[in-house]
Amino acid sequence: MQEKVLEQYLHENIPITQSMEVYVEHVSLLKVILAAPISKNINHKKTVFGGSLHSMTTLACWSLIYVNLKGLIESSEIVITHSDIQYLAPVSTDFTATCERPDEVAWQRFMQGLKLKGKARIELRARIYQKDKLAVDFLGTFAALKV
Amino acid sequence: MQEKVLEQYLHENIPITQSMEVYVEHVSLLKVILAAPISKNINHKKTVFGGSLHSMTTLACWSLIYVNLKGLIESSEIVITHSDIQYLAPVSTDFTATCERPDEVAWQRFMQGLKLKGKARIELRARIYQKDKLAVDFLGTFAALKV
Repeated sequence: MQEKVLEQYLHENIPITQSMEVYVEHVSLLKVILAAPISKNINHKKTVFGGSLHSMTTLACWSLIYVNLKGLIESSEIVITHSDIQYLAPVSTDFTATCERPDEVAWQRFMQGLKLKGKARIELRARIYQKDKLAVDFLGTFAALKV
Repeated sequence: MQEKVLEQYLHENIPITQSMEVYVEHVSLLKVILAAPISKNINHKKTVFGGSLHSMTTLACWSLIYVNLKGLIESSEIVITHSDIQYLAPVSTDFTATCERPDEVAWQRFMQGLKLKGKARIELRARIYQKDKLAVDFLGTFAALKV
Protein backbone atom coordinates (compact mmCIF):
# COMPACT_ATOMS: atom_id res chain seq x y z
CA MET A 1 0.00 0.00 0.00
CA GLN A 2 1.22 3.45 -0.83
CA GLU A 3 1.58 6.20 1.77
CA LYS A 4 -1.00 8.41 0.05
CA VAL A 5 -3.60 5.63 -0.07
CA LEU A 6 -3.40 4.98 3.67
CA GLU A 7 -3.35 8.72 4.36
CA GLN A 8 -6.51 9.26 2.34
CA TYR A 9 -8.20 6.34 4.09
CA LEU A 10 -7.41 7.83 7.51
CA HIS A 11 -8.49 11.34 6.52
CA GLU A 12 -11.78 10.14 5.06
CA ASN A 13 -12.72 7.65 7.75
CA ILE A 14 -11.32 9.29 10.89
CA PRO A 15 -11.78 12.99 10.10
CA ILE A 16 -10.08 14.26 13.28
CA THR A 17 -6.84 13.06 11.61
CA GLN A 18 -7.34 15.89 9.08
CA SER A 19 -7.54 18.45 11.89
CA MET A 20 -4.42 16.90 13.44
CA GLU A 21 -2.78 17.05 9.97
CA VAL A 22 -1.64 13.45 10.26
CA TYR A 23 0.31 12.23 7.27
CA VAL A 24 1.89 8.90 6.42
CA GLU A 25 5.66 9.02 6.27
CA HIS A 26 6.20 5.31 5.65
CA VAL A 27 4.06 2.24 5.19
CA SER A 28 5.04 -1.38 4.60
CA LEU A 29 3.86 -4.73 5.97
CA LEU A 30 6.56 -4.48 8.63
CA LYS A 31 6.37 -0.86 9.70
CA VAL A 32 4.13 2.21 9.75
CA ILE A 33 5.42 5.70 10.51
CA LEU A 34 2.86 8.49 10.93
CA ALA A 35 3.82 12.13 11.29
CA ALA A 36 2.09 15.32 12.47
CA PRO A 37 3.02 18.94 13.11
CA ILE A 38 3.11 20.28 16.65
CA SER A 39 1.17 23.40 15.54
CA LYS A 40 -2.13 21.53 15.22
CA ASN A 41 -1.55 19.43 18.33
CA ILE A 42 -0.10 21.93 20.78
CA ASN A 43 -1.10 22.33 24.42
CA HIS A 44 -0.95 24.99 27.15
CA LYS A 45 2.76 24.24 27.72
CA LYS A 46 3.67 24.61 24.02
CA THR A 47 4.38 20.90 23.83
CA VAL A 48 2.29 18.23 22.09
CA PHE A 49 -1.03 17.45 23.82
CA GLY A 50 -0.97 13.99 25.46
CA GLY A 51 -4.23 13.08 23.74
CA SER A 52 -2.70 13.70 20.31
CA LEU A 53 0.34 11.58 21.22
CA HIS A 54 -2.01 8.76 22.20
CA SER A 55 -4.06 9.17 19.01
CA MET A 56 -0.93 9.00 16.86
CA THR A 57 0.40 5.82 18.46
CA THR A 58 -3.05 4.23 18.30
CA LEU A 59 -3.34 5.12 14.60
CA ALA A 60 0.15 3.78 13.81
CA CYS A 61 -0.70 0.40 15.34
CA TRP A 62 -4.17 0.27 13.85
CA SER A 63 -2.73 1.10 10.41
CA LEU A 64 -0.10 -1.65 10.65
CA ILE A 65 -2.83 -4.26 11.17
CA TYR A 66 -5.00 -2.65 8.48
CA VAL A 67 -2.32 -2.80 5.78
CA ASN A 68 -1.46 -6.38 6.68
CA LEU A 69 -5.06 -7.62 6.59
CA LYS A 70 -6.10 -5.69 3.51
CA GLY A 71 -6.11 -8.05 0.54
CA LEU A 72 -5.42 -11.10 2.73
CA ILE A 73 -8.80 -11.19 4.43
CA GLU A 74 -11.87 -10.09 2.52
CA SER A 75 -13.37 -7.93 5.19
CA SER A 76 -12.34 -7.37 8.78
CA GLU A 77 -12.84 -5.01 11.67
CA ILE A 78 -9.95 -3.84 13.82
CA VAL A 79 -10.60 -2.18 17.15
CA ILE A 80 -8.49 -1.15 20.12
CA THR A 81 -9.52 -2.81 23.39
CA HIS A 82 -6.87 -1.57 25.82
CA SER A 83 -3.81 0.63 25.96
CA ASP A 84 -1.11 1.61 28.37
CA ILE A 85 0.95 4.68 27.58
CA GLN A 86 3.94 6.17 29.33
CA TYR A 87 4.78 9.81 28.72
CA LEU A 88 8.50 9.84 29.45
CA ALA A 89 9.46 13.27 28.11
CA PRO A 90 7.61 16.20 26.55
CA VAL A 91 7.47 16.44 22.75
CA SER A 92 8.16 19.97 21.61
CA THR A 93 8.59 19.62 17.84
CA ASP A 94 6.83 18.06 14.86
CA PHE A 95 6.83 14.35 15.57
CA THR A 96 6.41 10.80 14.26
CA ALA A 97 4.87 7.66 15.76
CA THR A 98 6.33 4.31 14.69
CA CYS A 99 4.78 0.86 14.97
CA GLU A 100 6.70 -2.21 13.84
CA ARG A 101 5.31 -5.69 13.37
CA PRO A 102 6.10 -7.78 16.46
CA ASP A 103 8.09 -11.03 16.43
CA GLU A 104 6.92 -13.70 14.00
CA VAL A 105 5.60 -16.06 16.70
CA ALA A 106 3.18 -13.44 18.04
CA TRP A 107 2.25 -12.34 14.54
CA GLN A 108 1.57 -15.85 13.23
CA ARG A 109 -0.49 -16.67 16.32
CA PHE A 110 -2.61 -13.62 15.56
CA MET A 111 -2.99 -14.47 11.86
CA GLN A 112 -3.79 -18.12 12.55
CA GLY A 113 -6.39 -17.16 15.16
CA LEU A 114 -8.01 -14.84 12.69
CA LYS A 115 -8.06 -17.45 9.92
CA LEU A 116 -9.22 -20.37 12.07
CA LYS A 117 -11.51 -18.71 14.60
CA GLY A 118 -12.45 -15.56 12.73
CA LYS A 119 -11.13 -13.37 15.55
CA ALA A 120 -7.85 -12.72 17.31
CA ARG A 121 -6.05 -10.21 19.51
CA ILE A 122 -2.55 -8.84 19.39
CA GLU A 123 -0.45 -6.46 21.45
CA LEU A 124 1.42 -3.84 19.48
CA ARG A 125 3.94 -1.27 20.62
CA ALA A 126 4.36 2.21 19.17
CA ARG A 127 6.94 4.79 20.11
CA ILE A 128 7.53 8.49 19.68
CA TYR A 129 11.07 9.81 19.93
CA GLN A 130 12.24 13.32 20.64
CA LYS A 131 15.62 13.52 18.90
CA ASP A 132 17.17 10.20 20.08
CA LYS A 133 15.26 10.02 23.32
CA LEU A 134 12.20 7.84 23.83
CA ALA A 135 9.40 10.27 24.74
CA VAL A 136 6.27 8.11 24.45
CA ASP A 137 6.02 4.36 24.93
CA PHE A 138 2.62 2.94 23.95
CA LEU A 139 1.37 -0.62 24.26
CA GLY A 140 -2.04 -1.38 22.80
CA THR A 141 -4.21 -4.46 22.49
CA PHE A 142 -6.10 -4.70 19.23
CA ALA A 143 -8.85 -7.13 18.28
CA ALA A 144 -9.52 -8.14 14.70
CA LEU A 145 -12.69 -9.80 13.55
CA LYS A 146 -13.54 -11.31 10.17
CA VAL A 147 -16.89 -9.91 9.10
CA MET B 1 -15.01 28.45 37.71
CA GLN B 2 -17.74 28.69 35.13
CA GLU B 3 -18.20 26.18 32.35
CA LYS B 4 -17.57 28.78 29.62
CA VAL B 5 -14.31 29.94 31.23
CA LEU B 6 -12.84 26.44 31.30
CA GLU B 7 -14.13 25.78 27.79
CA GLN B 8 -12.47 28.92 26.46
CA TYR B 9 -9.21 28.00 28.21
CA LEU B 10 -9.22 24.55 26.59
CA HIS B 11 -10.10 25.89 23.14
CA GLU B 12 -7.40 28.56 23.25
CA ASN B 13 -4.61 26.47 24.75
CA ILE B 14 -5.27 23.04 23.25
CA PRO B 15 -6.70 23.95 19.83
CA ILE B 16 -7.44 20.36 18.79
CA THR B 17 -10.30 20.58 21.35
CA GLN B 18 -11.95 23.08 19.00
CA SER B 19 -11.78 20.59 16.13
CA MET B 20 -13.19 17.91 18.44
CA GLU B 21 -15.91 20.40 19.46
CA VAL B 22 -15.29 19.70 23.14
CA TYR B 23 -17.54 21.64 25.46
CA VAL B 24 -17.81 21.78 29.23
CA GLU B 25 -21.07 20.39 30.54
CA HIS B 26 -20.27 20.75 34.24
CA VAL B 27 -17.38 22.04 36.31
CA SER B 28 -16.95 22.17 40.09
CA LEU B 29 -14.11 21.41 42.50
CA LEU B 30 -15.49 17.88 42.83
CA LYS B 31 -16.39 16.97 39.26
CA VAL B 32 -15.75 17.83 35.62
CA ILE B 33 -17.95 16.61 32.79
CA LEU B 34 -16.79 17.26 29.23
CA ALA B 35 -18.92 16.54 26.19
CA ALA B 36 -18.32 16.16 22.45
CA PRO B 37 -20.34 15.19 19.39
CA ILE B 38 -19.64 11.91 17.61
CA SER B 39 -19.70 13.73 14.24
CA LYS B 40 -16.29 15.34 14.74
CA ASN B 41 -14.79 12.27 16.39
CA ILE B 42 -16.11 9.46 14.24
CA ASN B 43 -14.08 6.53 12.92
CA HIS B 44 -14.25 3.99 10.10
CA LYS B 45 -16.85 1.97 12.06
CA LYS B 46 -19.14 4.97 12.65
CA THR B 47 -18.32 4.86 16.34
CA VAL B 48 -16.12 7.28 18.29
CA PHE B 49 -12.39 7.04 17.49
CA GLY B 50 -10.42 5.53 20.41
CA GLY B 51 -7.97 8.43 20.31
CA SER B 52 -10.78 10.94 20.87
CA LEU B 53 -12.12 8.88 23.79
CA HIS B 54 -8.64 8.94 25.34
CA SER B 55 -8.29 12.68 24.73
CA MET B 56 -11.64 13.39 26.39
CA THR B 57 -10.88 11.39 29.53
CA THR B 58 -7.41 12.93 29.74
CA LEU B 59 -8.89 16.43 29.41
CA ALA B 60 -11.55 15.75 32.06
CA CYS B 61 -8.90 14.67 34.59
CA TRP B 62 -6.49 17.46 33.65
CA SER B 63 -9.31 20.01 34.01
CA LEU B 64 -10.31 18.72 37.44
CA ILE B 65 -6.78 19.36 38.74
CA TYR B 66 -6.62 22.70 36.90
CA VAL B 67 -9.80 24.09 38.47
CA ASN B 68 -8.72 22.92 41.93
CA LEU B 69 -5.25 24.47 41.72
CA LYS B 70 -6.30 27.70 40.08
CA GLY B 71 -6.44 30.42 42.70
CA LEU B 72 -4.96 28.15 45.40
CA ILE B 73 -1.48 27.98 43.95
CA GLU B 74 -0.09 30.95 42.11
CA SER B 75 1.30 29.11 39.13
CA SER B 76 1.54 25.41 38.42
CA GLU B 77 2.08 22.97 35.63
CA ILE B 78 -0.02 19.84 35.28
CA VAL B 79 1.09 17.04 32.98
CA ILE B 80 0.01 13.47 32.33
CA THR B 81 2.76 10.90 32.94
CA HIS B 82 0.94 7.61 32.39
CA SER B 83 -2.45 6.23 31.48
CA ASP B 84 -4.21 2.94 31.20
CA ILE B 85 -7.48 2.83 29.28
CA GLN B 86 -9.93 0.02 28.75
CA TYR B 87 -12.32 0.21 25.83
CA LEU B 88 -15.18 -1.95 27.07
CA ALA B 89 -17.86 -1.11 24.51
CA PRO B 90 -18.09 1.05 21.39
CA VAL B 91 -19.47 4.58 21.75
CA SER B 92 -21.91 5.35 18.95
CA THR B 93 -23.53 8.62 20.05
CA ASP B 94 -22.51 12.06 21.31
CA PHE B 95 -20.76 11.40 24.59
CA THR B 96 -19.47 12.79 27.89
CA ALA B 97 -16.34 12.04 29.95
CA THR B 98 -16.60 12.43 33.72
CA CYS B 99 -13.81 12.80 36.25
CA GLU B 100 -14.58 13.06 39.96
CA ARG B 101 -12.17 14.04 42.70
CA PRO B 102 -10.85 10.89 44.39
CA ASP B 103 -11.22 10.12 48.11
CA GLU B 104 -10.07 12.84 50.52
CA VAL B 105 -7.00 10.88 51.74
CA ALA B 106 -5.53 10.66 48.25
CA TRP B 107 -6.50 14.22 47.46
CA GLN B 108 -5.01 15.70 50.64
CA ARG B 109 -1.80 13.70 50.12
CA PHE B 110 -1.55 15.25 46.66
CA MET B 111 -2.24 18.80 47.88
CA GLN B 112 0.15 18.49 50.83
CA GLY B 113 2.91 17.16 48.58
CA LEU B 114 2.41 20.06 46.24
CA LYS B 115 2.47 22.64 49.05
CA LEU B 116 5.42 21.16 50.96
CA LYS B 117 7.63 19.78 48.18
CA GLY B 118 6.44 21.84 45.24
CA LYS B 119 5.49 18.73 43.28
CA ALA B 120 3.13 15.79 43.60
CA ARG B 121 1.41 13.05 41.62
CA ILE B 122 -2.11 11.74 41.68
CA GLU B 123 -4.07 8.99 39.95
CA LEU B 124 -7.42 10.04 38.57
CA ARG B 125 -10.16 7.99 36.96
CA ALA B 126 -12.45 9.14 34.17
CA ARG B 127 -15.29 7.24 32.63
CA ILE B 128 -17.45 7.36 29.52
CA TYR B 129 -20.85 5.70 29.60
CA GLN B 130 -22.98 4.57 26.71
CA LYS B 131 -26.52 4.77 28.06
CA ASP B 132 -26.05 3.09 31.46
CA LYS B 133 -23.16 0.89 30.41
CA LEU B 134 -19.53 1.68 31.18
CA ALA B 135 -17.85 2.00 27.78
CA VAL B 136 -14.47 3.53 28.62
CA ASP B 137 -12.56 3.19 31.88
CA PHE B 138 -9.50 5.46 32.08
CA LEU B 139 -6.91 5.69 34.83
CA GLY B 140 -4.29 8.41 34.49
CA THR B 141 -1.35 9.57 36.56
CA PHE B 142 -0.88 13.33 36.61
CA ALA B 143 2.06 15.29 37.98
CA ALA B 144 1.68 18.85 39.22
CA LEU B 145 4.58 21.20 39.77
CA LYS B 146 4.67 24.63 41.37
CA VAL B 147 6.49 26.99 39.03
